[in-house]
Amino acid sequence: MENVRQMEIGPGMSIVELVGCMEHCGFGARRLAEAVSIYEQMLGEEYTRFFTLSGAMVPAGLRNVVSGLIRNGHIDVLVTTGANLVHDVIESFGSHCLGNPESDDAALREEGLSRIYDVFLPDEHFIRFEELMQSILPERADPISGTEFLRLIGSRISDPKSILRSAYERHVPVFCPAMSDSMIGLQAWLHRQNKPLFVDTLADIKEIVDICYEAKRAGIMIIGGGVPKNFALQSMLVTPKSFDLAIQLTTDTPENGGLSGATLSEAVSWGKISAEARYVTVYGDATITFPLIAAATMSKLEKRRDQCIDR
Amino acid sequence: MENVRQMEIGPGMSIVELVGCMEHCGFGARRLAEAVSIYEQMLGEEYTRFFTLSGAMVPAGLRNVVSGLIRNGHIDVLVTTGANLVHDVIESFGSHCLGNPESDDAALREEGLSRIYDVFLPDEHFIRFEELMQSILPERADPISGTEFLRLIGSRISDPKSILRSAYERHVPVFCPAMSDSMIGLQAWLHRQNKPLFVDTLADIKEIVDICYEAKRAGIMIIGGGVPKNFALQSMLVTPKSFDLAIQLTTDTPENGGLSGATLSEAVSWGKISAEARYVTVYGDATITFPLIAAATMSKLEKRRDQCIDR
Amino acid sequence: MENVRQMEIGPGMSIVELVGCMEHCGFGARRLAEAVSIYEQMLGEEYTRFFTLSGAMVPAGLRNVVSGLIRNGHIDVLVTTGANLVHDVIESFGSHCLGNPESDDAALREEGLSRIYDVFLPDEHFIRFEELMQSILPERADPISGTEFLRLIGSRISDPKSILRSAYERHVPVFCPAMSDSMIGLQAWLHRQNKPLFVDTLADIKEIVDICYEAKRAGIMIIGGGVPKNFALQSMLVTPKSFDLAIQLTTDTPENGGLSGATLSEAVSWGKISAEARYVTVYGDATITFPLIAAATMSKLEKRRDQCIDR
Amino acid sequence: MENVRQMEIGPGMSIVELVGCMEHCGFGARRLAEAVSIYEQMLGEEYTRFFTLSGAMVPAGLRNVVSGLIRNGHIDVLVTTGANLVHDVIESFGSHCLGNPESDDAALREEGLSRIYDVFLPDEHFIRFEELMQSILPERADPISGTEFLRLIGSRISDPKSILRSAYERHVPVFCPAMSDSMIGLQAWLHRQNKPLFVDTLADIKEIVDICYEAKRAGIMIIGGGVPKNFALQSMLVTPKSFDLAIQLTTDTPENGGLSGATLSEAVSWGKISAEARYVTVYGDATITFPLIAAATMSKLEKRRDQCIDR
Repeated sequence: MENVRQMEIGPGMSIVELVGCMEHCGFGARRLAEAVSIYEQMLGEEYTRFFTLSGAMVPAGLRNVVSGLIRNGHIDVLVTTGANLVHDVIESFGSHCLGNPESDDAALREEGLSRIYDVFLPDEHFIRFEELMQSILPERADPISGTEFLRLIGSRISDPKSILRSAYERHVPVFCPAMSDSMIGLQAWLHRQNKPLFVDTLADIKEIVDICYEAKRAGIMIIGGGVPKNFALQSMLVTPKSFDLAIQLTTDTPENGGLSGATLSEAVSWGKISAEARYVTVYGDATITFPLIAAATMSKLEKRRDQCIDR
Repeated sequence: MENVRQMEIGPGMSIVELVGCMEHCGFGARRLAEAVSIYEQMLGEEYTRFFTLSGAMVPAGLRNVVSGLIRNGHIDVLVTTGANLVHDVIESFGSHCLGNPESDDAALREEGLSRIYDVFLPDEHFIRFEELMQSILPERADPISGTEFLRLIGSRISDPKSILRSAYERHVPVFCPAMSDSMIGLQAWLHRQNKPLFVDTLADIKEIVDICYEAKRAGIMIIGGGVPKNFALQSMLVTPKSFDLAIQLTTDTPENGGLSGATLSEAVSWGKISAEARYVTVYGDATITFPLIAAATMSKLEKRRDQCIDR
Repeated sequence: MENVRQMEIGPGMSIVELVGCMEHCGFGARRLAEAVSIYEQMLGEEYTRFFTLSGAMVPAGLRNVVSGLIRNGHIDVLVTTGANLVHDVIESFGSHCLGNPESDDAALREEGLSRIYDVFLPDEHFIRFEELMQSILPERADPISGTEFLRLIGSRISDPKSILRSAYERHVPVFCPAMSDSMIGLQAWLHRQNKPLFVDTLADIKEIVDICYEAKRAGIMIIGGGVPKNFALQSMLVTPKSFDLAIQLTTDTPENGGLSGATLSEAVSWGKISAEARYVTVYGDATITFPLIAAATMSKLEKRRDQCIDR
Repeated sequence: MENVRQMEIGPGMSIVELVGCMEHCGFGARRLAEAVSIYEQMLGEEYTRFFTLSGAMVPAGLRNVVSGLIRNGHIDVLVTTGANLVHDVIESFGSHCLGNPESDDAALREEGLSRIYDVFLPDEHFIRFEELMQSILPERADPISGTEFLRLIGSRISDPKSILRSAYERHVPVFCPAMSDSMIGLQAWLHRQNKPLFVDTLADIKEIVDICYEAKRAGIMIIGGGVPKNFALQSMLVTPKSFDLAIQLTTDTPENGGLSGATLSEAVSWGKISAEARYVTVYGDATITFPLIAAATMSKLEKRRDQCIDR
């Protein structure tokens, strides 16, 4: 058995050094270090990388981290919630604000502010969102899949930091299995009152299942559970394959039986994740754990690359 | 200020008496008693009652509670996950099993058992589910909404305890905004490889928004957050109305910013819930809190009815 | 494997019937039913029953439930926090109040109200508590154990619903391993500025270890973890015995490595709980789960007693 | 209102840069950045710094972080659990091991391994601990306070990385209000079967209250709640002062009314924390958040020092 090596910290230590210390510790620190190790492996060439994003991660400030990963080629398939895409579009023209999570919500309503914990959004952003959507939503006589629909929106957003734009540019398919559960869905519905538009969400199933089939090896980074987690795992289920690497960042725990807190081991019983897979769940707020894991992994990758060049 | 009245319990006490004691206590007990009080009001005639169901509540054993509420006229609109509907269909011909949540998941896979915490499902149920679905899925040349699609499935299930069957019989619309994220979605996609079928999930938006518009007063019981919570609240948002009564049963907490743990007060800032609404969140496992709240409310309602008859 | 039996609820159902339904369900419902079954066994004659109480259970309204269990002979050893005993003494002359957990805490301070989530306590109660303690605290030239000290306080409280009074009357030892971490400790320290008093908390160790040694069989009900949980389990550890039955009600989960959320299985690795023991953890707010479990168990016991008399 | 600034991460970024990004984000990231800012202020000269440590932080690998802070003069008063001190003593001669948290606990017992989540401890370490304690525990005819008792133990441990040794050397008082709830307490009790020893835990109250009185300004870092949190806050309560700065790292949340999850705002209603204080709670596993906060703060301090020297 490996010994616990008591962590040593000091001024000026790098993120990689900190994570390196965590590797020999217990509890969450150890899981976080393991996540970095798995993520480093997952960014290797032979992997098709799925990335699922739930929770209000874009309003909280992780948009550029996600779009950066897309632009760096670190995400091959993105599955997310409608809300994250709505806020991605909003960030292309305006900002979310920081406020007090204990504010009087009735007063906020009177001021025209919608609250997501400590992030506020003024009503004018929703008005502008509506105008933008009505101007860029496609007209199509034939049904299109949800990913195609989102690709078209991405092509019409100019902000290079946008998740949808970045995915469009890098040919990364974006799946949003609950699109009607978002303001994009609402706008699409309004739009087609007088324009032809049919979004065929069942068509998405074929697209993602094909990607699963074609993956040589597959890895998945799951942020926050929910529909995106299930949709990605279920898609693998209908193929003879399964995920070889998996990381889950969640604040839910398994005892209540919900999918968002279910262990990745549970997914092994379904055949979604391989019995030989490496996987780890990091419990905690992904606004802390995700950038830490991503920054550590990037640093390790660059170091490895530098070492290769040196030789 | 009201005083805490120390709880007194004894043998033979009824559920209503227990909840009556909780009313004058602090913490979760008080919230649970408040939920019963709000639920009793919500079951009054003038309310349109929304009910959202997330988490693996059907596998865990709450199916008949939900279908019973539908048959009793206590649910007017149901919004749920695909998974709960899949397991509802499965329960119409076979049972889930109870197992050890610490089982070896690779061994379970070899035995053909899929695990949902401590509930197991044998593969043969999925095979039979597939056969059933392929035999009852509708053929339709024209697009149908998700609710119409689910209504058709409900009409073809014979088990009277089924949620889908009960909803069909009682004309309760069932919304499943992430249908493609479920085995019903998968089966629908397989089905239409050679049969015409087009499920138009955007059409659901109009149907639920219309119900929101027409509601004299609206109440909502939210079990477990997720897409169903958001879809129901969002639908009210696009009307000039808002929910007057709301109950949320969840294991999530607000600090992480996700919707499933967001306070109902937060929904007031969006205008989804009225500033004058009565609302409460009961934190805890809904397999405990929900039947307790429902049984207490039913008992109180019957008592009130008996008193009316006595006069 | 046992099948999940879908729960059926209805008006007028008893607590025992509700728990009976939960027995065949998954997740928390199943654990709660198991807790009732274990508790019923634990109340059998051959068991010495340990009861540990953490969290602000007395302010929240569970004082009379605990003192009732003591008076009924259902608790043989009580281990608790200083705070619960302080609030037990306060409830012997005054009440806690119910308030809004989102109150302005600075304003509460100005009004002289101390807040425990949604339970408030006016400063005058603390003043009266101080007067009472200074009048009843014992003078003793020789060192006394913590349990003896608490026994003396219990003998001087007249309220029959008091936990300390009930324990005194029923000869139930009360252990408070962190007594100096409470206002009882503070008052004892003030008191002995001019009166002799020496509380020897190490002496408590011998007293509880002796009880562990003498127990034919031992059961434990753990409410909320913390020092009381550890003290009771540790005491068993130094004997050749271990707990045969154990129930834990907690809101903590295991992932973070803290004792309050540690599984009871973990205690098996230490030898605190027997490898053959029956044990279960019910996750959730004990102000809901504990009265439910206690009321169900009492009802089952009375029913069994009635059946015996009938024969 | 300040805008959310979308986080930008990249290879080679420093911990300070990462935390700098988090400052303009929502949810946990923002709280963590605020904790660093408060901690930086707290390490200023005019503050007396209280540090409370709960949870199995020493077994998990944070021992040297804590002893390092003591040696750096960043902790003026330490309040902790007996368990952390026991494991501190054990680490002075032996190591904890890393294992699988899903191990068979009955098998571990047979192998003589005690488990703390994923950290294992072989029985021989406890035997050696007992021998060491029996050889170093003091003999004293007159009662000594708990802090004096721990100071004496610290003076007899040679490992410079020990928390108790470091505290002894730096004259940092260590408070352990529930000493009898630990193996140090058990050993002390065994020791005095034939040697004079009286630990007077009430005497600790005076010592810590005196420190509170004398503090010009006071700050507190609370890791994990429990008795240490309460003892430190309560000690301030009996003075006319209150904490000016406070940081809490916890996995508990407020809804259940327990102290470990109680907001720091709640402590304002008691007068433990000043109404004008800066305070923040970071929710999450302290094995991740604490080293991150400590390393970031150290780096910022050193940078500031370097800038001063440069001028």
